[in-house]
Amino acid sequence: MEHGGDLISYADYYQGELIDFSSNINPLGPPKGLNELLMDSFNTLASYPDIQYRYLKKSISKYLKCNEKNVVVGNGAVEIINNIIHLFKRVIVFIPSFSEYESRAKVFGKEILKINYLEDFSLDLKKLKENMKKGDLLILGNPNNPTGLRIKKEELIKTYEIVENKGGFLLLDEAFFEFCPEDYDSIEIFRDEKFKKVGIIRAATKFFALPGIRLGYACIPDNMIEEYKKIELPWSVNALADCAGRYIFSSKDYIVKSKDYINQERKFLLDELSKINGIKVYTTHTNYILIQLLKWDEEFVFHKFLKDGLVIRKCSSFDGLGENHIRVAIKDRDKNLRLIESFKKTGEDIV
Amino acid sequence: MEHGGDLISYADYYQGELIDFSSNINPLGPPKGLNELLMDSFNTLASYPDIQYRYLKKSISKYLKCNEKNVVVGNGAVEIINNIIHLFKRVIVFIPSFSEYESRAKVFGKEILKINYLEDFSLDLKKLKENMKKGDLLILGNPNNPTGLRIKKEELIKTYEIVENKGGFLLLDEAFFEFCPEDYDSIEIFRDEKFKKVGIIRAATKFFALPGIRLGYACIPDNMIEEYKKIELPWSVNALADCAGRYIFSSKDYIVKSKDYINQERKFLLDELSKINGIKVYTTHTNYILIQLLKWDEEFVFHKFLKDGLVIRKCSSFDGLGENHIRVAIKDRDKNLRLIESFKKTGEDIV
Repeated sequence: MEHGGDLISYADYYQGELIDFSSNINPLGPPKGLNELLMDSFNTLASYPDIQYRYLKKSISKYLKCNEKNVVVGNGAVEIINNIIHLFKRVIVFIPSFSEYESRAKVFGKEILKINYLEDFSLDLKKLKENMKKGDLLILGNPNNPTGLRIKKEELIKTYEIVENKGGFLLLDEAFFEFCPEDYDSIEIFRDEKFKKVGIIRAATKFFALPGIRLGYACIPDNMIEEYKKIELPWSVNALADCAGRYIFSSKDYIVKSKDYINQERKFLLDELSKINGIKVYTTHTNYILIQLLKWDEEFVFHKFLKDGLVIRKCSSFDGLGENHIRVAIKDRDKNLRLIESFKKTGEDIV
Repeated sequence: MEHGGDLISYADYYQGELIDFSSNINPLGPPKGLNELLMDSFNTLASYPDIQYRYLKKSISKYLKCNEKNVVVGNGAVEIINNIIHLFKRVIVFIPSFSEYESRAKVFGKEILKINYLEDFSLDLKKLKENMKKGDLLILGNPNNPTGLRIKKEELIKTYEIVENKGGFLLLDEAFFEFCPEDYDSIEIFRDEKFKKVGIIRAATKFFALPGIRLGYACIPDNMIEEYKKIELPWSVNALADCAGRYIFSSKDYIVKSKDYINQERKFLLDELSKINGIKVYTTHTNYILIQLLKWDEEFVFHKFLKDGLVIRKCSSFDGLGENHIRVAIKDRDKNLRLIESFKKTGEDIV
């Protein structure tokens, strides 16, 4: 399974520190004060974490503004996705999307139905309606990876109605939620107990810049909690991740600053990239950009950028995309300028 | 699922700090120098861990004296047990043993065959031979939890022969390996490539006193690696656990000192407990002791000890044991004295 962030595999190709445009992490780094907190928490390593993660769930429920009893936690969003897939008969994914949806379904021997996103990467609700059956799990990235687009509010509500009518379940993977415009909050929309067929996953990984800490969390409905608890592995969140999760969500200034920063750099990078020859830049709501290569294939661009010390994400491993797409993260200004520079050089070389 | 180490649930019953005799952790605490190393490794949290854990596996293979390509790592031993169970049709467990063997098998809807340990808690190889079928996974704790006994070398080799002849697989859960007498090393026995039907799991959890860090590892045969990699979750070992695992195994003085310390306290505690009225003390090879209560039930003793600030492990949740067994960890001398004191008081109260 190909993923971003695998710099070790390419370390020998470049003299110097590689810049990782392949994984989509908040360029401001983790919230201030976290290191000091962790330093004071080393003694927690010598005990098991609370097997029920009570304080952690309290902190998350406060942040998500949802009920504590509906919160589950896991080793990154991917562990929660894995566990929820386990509970269903068939998995429906729209493609292209995060490859783990399909690969975790395969691990459990689940039937998989793939539906293509429409040409503008919006949902094909007609096809969903025709194909969804009782017991199906629909997993949607919101925003979706690698397309970067968030589902429109009305579309999301329509999707939920289809899922509920058909007797399925809607799982929203919102690992990139905080980077997006604040047009709506799906947890607010679906918080009411009458919404029994939807779960929402988020994570500390991307926005809080902590992919190494492995902390995902989700808000799932009452009627799923008991089944979920039966299948989750004990203690899958590390003790320091437990501590971090009781701290980071109260970093209000950091949260505001990060959102503003990404907003500004997204605008800057989209503007600059749109001037480059030979690529089509898709718009994005989040902190990464999907790019169609009009004149090259992903391998060519990947190795060309690698010579400049930049690692980008090839996209042919996303089902539904060919060898002419790449994805780049939005990073800090200096690094974004280096990315633009590499694109410009590539454009000039060819034209 | 009941486990040791759940102190939060009992915090309100005692004014002061509870002593945890319910989870079996090296009383000397983690190796020296680890905190400093982790402090210097905080920057790793802002990147994904190496998805292949290359350096970590190198360090583990050196420690285990096995081939690097045969090492897998996971979120505690329990995640590796979980993944390996996934690969088989039926699971055979001897009871009483660690409850997760059975519960993870249930999660995957596997058939489960339970065989009772003989009265002296040795293996019933006759019954195993009669019942084992092709495709079965036999999981054995070595030493077993909660009985504390290690399989004799000849018995282990006999067991492997039965398993191989029947076309099954033997999984040894050796999470407590380092606490035991050094009579043999199962990895040394089974290292040769001709042993294709055995895997050996160990962990940083118990001996290195790092239950909070979540680091398990295993040596599995060549022909299982590919299948295993297909089903394991990405990045399930936290970045700081990755760093710790590249450090702790080279702490040679700590390893020797810990073994000596547990040896000495095991002897002391076994001697002292054997003088107490109303209990039968089973011998042990490791850092916990199974005790049969001759005059009380586990609830009575649990709550009596809780009033003294001690949390012990009730054992009725172990299939195969009734309400008249408890398990206690071997801790440092001061704490062991408090345990003996509480036992003495309980003995005197009744007699």
